[in-house]
Amino acid sequence: LESDFIAWLRQRVPPHPQLLLGPGDDAAILRLGDRADCVVTVDLLTEGVDFDLQAVSARRVGRKALAVSLSDLAAMAARPVGMVVAVALPRRGGRQLAIELFEGLAEMAGRYGVAIAGGDTNSWDGPLVVSVTAIGQTTAAGPLLRSGAKPGDRILVTGDFGGSILGKHLDFEPRINESLLLADRCRLHAGIDVSDGLSLDLSRIAAESRCGATIELSRVPISLAAQELARQEADGPTPLDRALSDGEDFELILAVAPDDAARLVSEQPVAPLQLTDIGEFVAELGLWQSTAGGNREPLEPRGWEHRFD
Amino acid sequence: LESDFIAWLRQRVPPHPQLLLGPGDDAAILRLGDRADCVVTVDLLTEGVDFDLQAVSARRVGRKALAVSLSDLAAMAARPVGMVVAVALPRRGGRQLAIELFEGLAEMAGRYGVAIAGGDTNSWDGPLVVSVTAIGQTTAAGPLLRSGAKPGDRILVTGDFGGSILGKHLDFEPRINESLLLADRCRLHAGIDVSDGLSLDLSRIAAESRCGATIELSRVPISLAAQELARQEADGPTPLDRALSDGEDFELILAVAPDDAARLVSEQPVAPLQLTDIGEFVAELGLWQSTAGGNREPLEPRGWEHRFD
Repeated sequence: LESDFIAWLRQRVPPHPQLLLGPGDDAAILRLGDRADCVVTVDLLTEGVDFDLQAVSARRVGRKALAVSLSDLAAMAARPVGMVVAVALPRRGGRQLAIELFEGLAEMAGRYGVAIAGGDTNSWDGPLVVSVTAIGQTTAAGPLLRSGAKPGDRILVTGDFGGSILGKHLDFEPRINESLLLADRCRLHAGIDVSDGLSLDLSRIAAESRCGATIELSRVPISLAAQELARQEADGPTPLDRALSDGEDFELILAVAPDDAARLVSEQPVAPLQLTDIGEFVAELGLWQSTAGGNREPLEPRGWEHRFD
Repeated sequence: LESDFIAWLRQRVPPHPQLLLGPGDDAAILRLGDRADCVVTVDLLTEGVDFDLQAVSARRVGRKALAVSLSDLAAMAARPVGMVVAVALPRRGGRQLAIELFEGLAEMAGRYGVAIAGGDTNSWDGPLVVSVTAIGQTTAAGPLLRSGAKPGDRILVTGDFGGSILGKHLDFEPRINESLLLADRCRLHAGIDVSDGLSLDLSRIAAESRCGATIELSRVPISLAAQELARQEADGPTPLDRALSDGEDFELILAVAPDDAARLVSEQPVAPLQLTDIGEFVAELGLWQSTAGGNREPLEPRGWEHRFD
């Protein structure tokens, strides 16, 4: 599993005087000169796993390739600055793919003020591979880490969840503007973007913060797409199951002190995008669902993980 | 051709206030805050094109993946700071590959003081793909660009050329230390690393500097590997042909004022690595070879280019 490998890796990465935050969060933080504000993240998409060129234009792939990395910057409350892209193009038709990829990247870059800084263009006999590295800068609010949630903090989420395969996994907006605004408005204790599934990514932010998290399942915002998929697949997962475990929602999970959370939910400062309080960080490790009478029982984290052996 | 696509791209990348140097050089330069010193470069290696896992350990692939990007930083006279890596792993045997890749990356990172900042680990049904983004910082000497050569400048090269396929293409040292030392010792006007072939990369530095370059062919340092290959392939390219057109030497080409060049060649400050003066930048555009009697004739730039259509 990818998560096993990352756990192995984190034990082996040596400390470095210019590395403020290494593997294990949504992005890394490097110190250049006297300022520790350079935020870096990389994502790689492969044809057949992340997109299907039979069904999707290369332009949408390019758009997604950058948006995925920008979502990581959003999860760090970092302002995007620039990006570089590396591609492996099939030799036949590669030029047209490259042009369309660029158009999608450029559209997304323009939307969020990201400089297209450079890249590496390769050809081979394999399928399309696109890797985008995004570089951002922390703001006066400081970086938003996975590790700052405290027991008693509320669990706030943006938007709704599940069924992204119907389109949102390609056409989502990275929550850059929302993250910067919220970090400016109040002290966010911790954050993560939901790339692999709400319950899985919530369990990660809790684990990094050495605490647990209790979801009130009735409060989880379920997308229309999750409901639509459940209608289509009568024997498949319920809409709530999909909201908890489908990947690529690219919404934010935030840990916020109770009074700030109440204020944000009341003011809804990033409307029309909804902010919802779905539960609480708790002292007891693990992921939980609240049950009648104020009790809780374990909830299994589920979502997408890359598998290899 | 890759170069056609890059030319197309350079016309289309919009200016950006934080982008000091965009596509077309060995790396990009971004401004973070008030300092324009963040140097970024990405390279991607694919199984079957850049390495053959039947013949080469994943450890050597990991080493090369980082060294290629560090060579780009060397060509910018930038000090390496950190790196992120994205991989697409085959599902079967991917874990062992990932561990060996990391070991090779970590060895190279340790050698040059590079922080291993993070990455993205993917699995798929395809071959191994590795993409490394390196982040560096310009020094007090400023960045070394491709575009600063002036007619009259001497062409200095490090090391020798040709036949890298016999091993150097995997096990080369990026010329980081040499580049930083030389940039500190004298004003380097322009620089590039030879990834695609001495004559091709020399033609690129000349074109970016809007001048030409004349090589004295008898002065080109030819590697033992190029001579060995020529012996093995009696009907193949000559050792000089290989030195001019084989890719992946990862040596530096530098444009230096004549008096500085004479001093550097005399002092040999990066010994045992040899500095050789192989010719002159000239006003007339194009690549040239000097002939008897002080004349010159055109020399065709040759080397490796990614091809796709």
